[in-house]
Amino acid sequence: MQHNNQYYPSYLRLEQLLDCQHPLSFEEGQTPAHDEMLFIIIHQAYELWFKQLLFELDYVKKVFNKEKVDDNSEELNLCRHRLGRMVRIMELLNQQVAVLETMTPLDFLEFRNLLTPASGFQSKQFRLLEASLGLKMEKRHQKDYYKRTNEGGFTQPDYQEINAEETVESLLQQINRWLERMPFFDEKYWVDYQPEAVEKIAHHPFWDDYRTIYKNSLTHNEENQLKGFDEHFLYGQTYEDSLSPAARRSALFIMLYRDFPVFQTSFQILDKLIELDHLFAGWRHKHYVMVRRMIGMRVGTGNTSGAGYLEGAVQQHYIFKDLSGLATFLIERRKLPALPNTLIQALGFRG
Amino acid sequence: MQHNNQYYPSYLRLEQLLDCQHPLSFEEGQTPAHDEMLFIIIHQAYELWFKQLLFELDYVKKVFNKEKVDDNSEELNLCRHRLGRMVRIMELLNQQVAVLETMTPLDFLEFRNLLTPASGFQSKQFRLLEASLGLKMEKRHQKDYYKRTNEGGFTQPDYQEINAEETVESLLQQINRWLERMPFFDEKYWVDYQPEAVEKIAHHPFWDDYRTIYKNSLTHNEENQLKGFDEHFLYGQTYEDSLSPAARRSALFIMLYRDFPVFQTSFQILDKLIELDHLFAGWRHKHYVMVRRMIGMRVGTGNTSGAGYLEGAVQQHYIFKDLSGLATFLIERRKLPALPNTLIQALGFRG
Amino acid sequence: MQHNNQYYPSYLRLEQLLDCQHPLSFEEGQTPAHDEMLFIIIHQAYELWFKQLLFELDYVKKVFNKEKVDDNSEELNLCRHRLGRMVRIMELLNQQVAVLETMTPLDFLEFRNLLTPASGFQSKQFRLLEASLGLKMEKRHQKDYYKRTNEGGFTQPDYQEINAEETVESLLQQINRWLERMPFFDEKYWVDYQPEAVEKIAHHPFWDDYRTIYKNSLTHNEENQLKGFDEHFLYGQTYEDSLSPAARRSALFIMLYRDFPVFQTSFQILDKLIELDHLFAGWRHKHYVMVRRMIGMRVGTGNTSGAGYLEGAVQQHYIFKDLSGLATFLIERRKLPALPNTLIQALGFRG
Amino acid sequence: MQHNNQYYPSYLRLEQLLDCQHPLSFEEGQTPAHDEMLFIIIHQAYELWFKQLLFELDYVKKVFNKEKVDDNSEELNLCRHRLGRMVRIMELLNQQVAVLETMTPLDFLEFRNLLTPASGFQSKQFRLLEASLGLKMEKRHQKDYYKRTNEGGFTQPDYQEINAEETVESLLQQINRWLERMPFFDEKYWVDYQPEAVEKIAHHPFWDDYRTIYKNSLTHNEENQLKGFDEHFLYGQTYEDSLSPAARRSALFIMLYRDFPVFQTSFQILDKLIELDHLFAGWRHKHYVMVRRMIGMRVGTGNTSGAGYLEGAVQQHYIFKDLSGLATFLIERRKLPALPNTLIQALGFRG
Repeated sequence: MQHNNQYYPSYLRLEQLLDCQHPLSFEEGQTPAHDEMLFIIIHQAYELWFKQLLFELDYVKKVFNKEKVDDNSEELNLCRHRLGRMVRIMELLNQQVAVLETMTPLDFLEFRNLLTPASGFQSKQFRLLEASLGLKMEKRHQKDYYKRTNEGGFTQPDYQEINAEETVESLLQQINRWLERMPFFDEKYWVDYQPEAVEKIAHHPFWDDYRTIYKNSLTHNEENQLKGFDEHFLYGQTYEDSLSPAARRSALFIMLYRDFPVFQTSFQILDKLIELDHLFAGWRHKHYVMVRRMIGMRVGTGNTSGAGYLEGAVQQHYIFKDLSGLATFLIERRKLPALPNTLIQALGFRG
Repeated sequence: MQHNNQYYPSYLRLEQLLDCQHPLSFEEGQTPAHDEMLFIIIHQAYELWFKQLLFELDYVKKVFNKEKVDDNSEELNLCRHRLGRMVRIMELLNQQVAVLETMTPLDFLEFRNLLTPASGFQSKQFRLLEASLGLKMEKRHQKDYYKRTNEGGFTQPDYQEINAEETVESLLQQINRWLERMPFFDEKYWVDYQPEAVEKIAHHPFWDDYRTIYKNSLTHNEENQLKGFDEHFLYGQTYEDSLSPAARRSALFIMLYRDFPVFQTSFQILDKLIELDHLFAGWRHKHYVMVRRMIGMRVGTGNTSGAGYLEGAVQQHYIFKDLSGLATFLIERRKLPALPNTLIQALGFRG
Repeated sequence: MQHNNQYYPSYLRLEQLLDCQHPLSFEEGQTPAHDEMLFIIIHQAYELWFKQLLFELDYVKKVFNKEKVDDNSEELNLCRHRLGRMVRIMELLNQQVAVLETMTPLDFLEFRNLLTPASGFQSKQFRLLEASLGLKMEKRHQKDYYKRTNEGGFTQPDYQEINAEETVESLLQQINRWLERMPFFDEKYWVDYQPEAVEKIAHHPFWDDYRTIYKNSLTHNEENQLKGFDEHFLYGQTYEDSLSPAARRSALFIMLYRDFPVFQTSFQILDKLIELDHLFAGWRHKHYVMVRRMIGMRVGTGNTSGAGYLEGAVQQHYIFKDLSGLATFLIERRKLPALPNTLIQALGFRG
Repeated sequence: MQHNNQYYPSYLRLEQLLDCQHPLSFEEGQTPAHDEMLFIIIHQAYELWFKQLLFELDYVKKVFNKEKVDDNSEELNLCRHRLGRMVRIMELLNQQVAVLETMTPLDFLEFRNLLTPASGFQSKQFRLLEASLGLKMEKRHQKDYYKRTNEGGFTQPDYQEINAEETVESLLQQINRWLERMPFFDEKYWVDYQPEAVEKIAHHPFWDDYRTIYKNSLTHNEENQLKGFDEHFLYGQTYEDSLSPAARRSALFIMLYRDFPVFQTSFQILDKLIELDHLFAGWRHKHYVMVRRMIGMRVGTGNTSGAGYLEGAVQQHYIFKDLSGLATFLIERRKLPALPNTLIQALGFRG
């Protein structure tokens, strides 16, 4: 049936792939530094995986780019599955740091100067990944580093490419749009709802009730959280790096009622976004610790502040913090308002 | 030959062990929260491993407690081996966090209030571990939490036990003493050494030379590191949470000449202490991320600031930072001063 | 709101828990073997996790014990979630082996004789886990070992308890029943189906078509697989350790059409069962390798054949092999028969 | 000081590296199979790591290629360190399998036929790695597969290259030679040794004593192990895939007296060889399980028997089994013959 005759080494282009490792210290006139090979290969392995992450992300973004994502299509399920794969890859990248840790500071010093001013900071694929997920140049830790051509920043074309990625709708913004359009607060589903709350503050009786229950659940020293609640879900402004109040309401609703069939896959998608965020943070933290160990308090090869740079990025580069932040505003399951039957029906299978 | 007749379940006291799980939410009058069992079991697994860590640490400290550790005894090798085991256990504890992450914030909320004001903060074994390694109450992040009996701190006896542990020499202090007594800068080994340096600043010709080479290796924007060098290795004061200049000199010397037989095991010991420190930091960071996800910005069950507390501990609870900090002061191998033959002989095997 | 005043050490019953470690070699008249503590603690950690696995499994079996599992209830989603947790725990247990590998054969020998004839073979919880999932005594590797009281087998009561567990419906049997009752081959969903196949061999036109396509996809040296197909899906007998042809048909159907909303969660459940099976196999294989390393070709403490016993168990103790075996009978997505619209509707959300 | 001006993307040859991924199903006329990209990238990541493993192994073999390895040189310590790195890489490759497991059988089927007859079997680097460690073509599971050009075997040049690697001394043979030359049984070290054994069977009084103690340690059903002992350490023949009796004696001696300074690094080297062997076995087992899940009982794309092939390799491709097998012949530390003082001196540091 097949007329081709594939051979594993040619299929994988191994000749080309295994010809990409050229340690500078192996060049004539230099003292070969054994560990430079590891340094190159581990960074190349990272880049291969970044390509795969971008490839999976690209699929997910194509789906969420649609005007409306059809819950009955296979696409949402595939998004869940492929975000799950991204999670697995990020777990691997976290484990991969352990291999680099077999290079001691003294071994790194053997070839460190040859690299100047190159550094892992300049991984364009990683920067595109961050941008595509939703990190904005303005919010990047020490954003000025990026444009320092010839001193450890990016070349002009690469810098522009990263910026251009920002002009496209990010996954964060897509998710915001997707959440905002969730139809489940439409009046038609709520006709037989019996609101309990006396205070009418939210735009929808469910949220009046929820707000009251939440308020009552707060202890003495948590009272300022009600203000947080109102800002998050009622009056807050929408920034390009955060979700809108309407999107947050949908996300919270999915989190609370995730066992209803129609929310099962959506909940897993939100959960995997949080997990991805945390795996990126974990990876940055491991790198921070590793760099600290490798160069101590020295400046990085790329003239960044070295370990200090990474520490800042660990703290500031969260993208889906609005999703994980929802945990602040949960109430216990048994105190949840009973949903109207019309809605319950709509959340189920046709069967 | 054996007269006993062991049975695995009795040998392991399984009846007693498996009778330690009593979820509060399973008690009469409560709504059973399925995930409380996981919460209990994972924390118990942590405590079992803490016991093992303390047991291994105890051995290591017994060895370093001696007036002089004999390089020819088996003890140093066993210390290396057992610190290596502690590293493996800490790697496991880092991986173990992933299991707790299968508990969602909403599931935690089902039994969270029942725990108040208990919290993982109150793990006495973990606090003893920190103290035994070298963390001082004064340096602990938000040290006031510890004594708040009945509000999430420790009971009086437990608080005193943690403090008492501090009055014993910590591993950090033992390592300091061990390093200080390294005999390799004795004059007798250096009679045929040919110093190169013109500036006589250090107490020993080797360090005069090293300082000069280090100085010359610094680039423009690294010049303030020479001041750091002098403070670290020449004039610096010794605090109870840091190494003395003499100890730092030995540690740096071991790092530089680690391939000489007599230093091979010592280097691995220093390396594992750094690794342990970083694995503790990684574990705290994972917990910080996990708690943030679990309770958002709420206060912790133990009335700590919750995630905020952990973030502080991640940054401040490094114990062997003086060892990892040595990376700042390395020079390239090929620029190292040639050691005198008498010393080289002394660093080798008798054969 | 809370009147209790919990303290972490008492909540976790740490006094009792941390009093379960009594190395035999630490007793009077014996030479203390340092590593016996590790041996005890790691096995106790395993037992804690086995308890958790049994607890999660218990929930899953309560759900599948029902006459009919309601797709619209939260239960199926919780089963998926909790099987996912079991997967995470098994991953941890696989990683945990690495800690035991820090015990060398010579260190084990220091206390090995004291254990006789106890051995890990006698973990009742693990045996109950196997039985509850679906492993039968008859199918256990070297089943005679189990009843050898006083020689490394089980006590009479424990042996009976394991056997009793077999009289309860196993998860495998429950899954079989659940799959058999899938209503999606009811005539009412297929009225507008246009069968293509000429050969009428199966009981349902869909399977006639599928069989024809499968047959055409086979290459020269795969022809005996058609016989396998017929046995698996049409005529095969049902044994208590395998799925019935009807159940296999449902499982294959779910695998093929898993992106339809109604199958998404079911597919993940089947997938996790396969994953669990493989993680158990991986764990047994790691133990086999570890035991081989520890005692070489010696007989085990429990008078089993040692490593040899484990090797047999790796091969024979698969429980859900019928599910992973379905991969043999897949056809490419683009060749799948088009489903009738009535059915497609039924597989979707009400919306 | 540096005149070059490195840029991370060019240093790593990313343009070339990231142009090696060309899924066949993405070509004109084919239906793009999303998961083919993952399939390519994960195999390329494996190949990058195989290159690194070969690079580290190459260093180790250069050292052991010497007539005599100097215990006082840095080389042995570097071998230990770099074998340790190989262990870390193999651990990563074991974890990496989890990423491939996110590809389901149905997803694989989408592009599986396009690959025929290519398969992972044809990884030349992996085969060279096996050969360089010490696996002989004669001992390979189903060795006939290797030469089946055009049907899933190797091209003629690649087949010859793998065979050529066998003509070079393998690491196993080098280790054998290194162990055989250990000078510690020279008469000069044993002049003041007081042999106890009555039976004079071995060539050296130490082994007469050891044999007697071992014999006495055997239980009833272990008696045939004495015959094994004699074959292993006294009379056995040497094959190219095993150690000689003399080498085994040295290895056992190192294992027993590993805490003496001169053996510390050597013991770790032996230990890491065993660990590597087991990690390769673990990796093969994980692949076997994964392939079984992916294609069930089908033949592999390379016309191998698929999962069956891998199962055989798991069992047969151990290289350092003679080292792990030593565990069969250990005696308890406290029963070890006391070494003569002359030898004890020679095993220590000069100090």
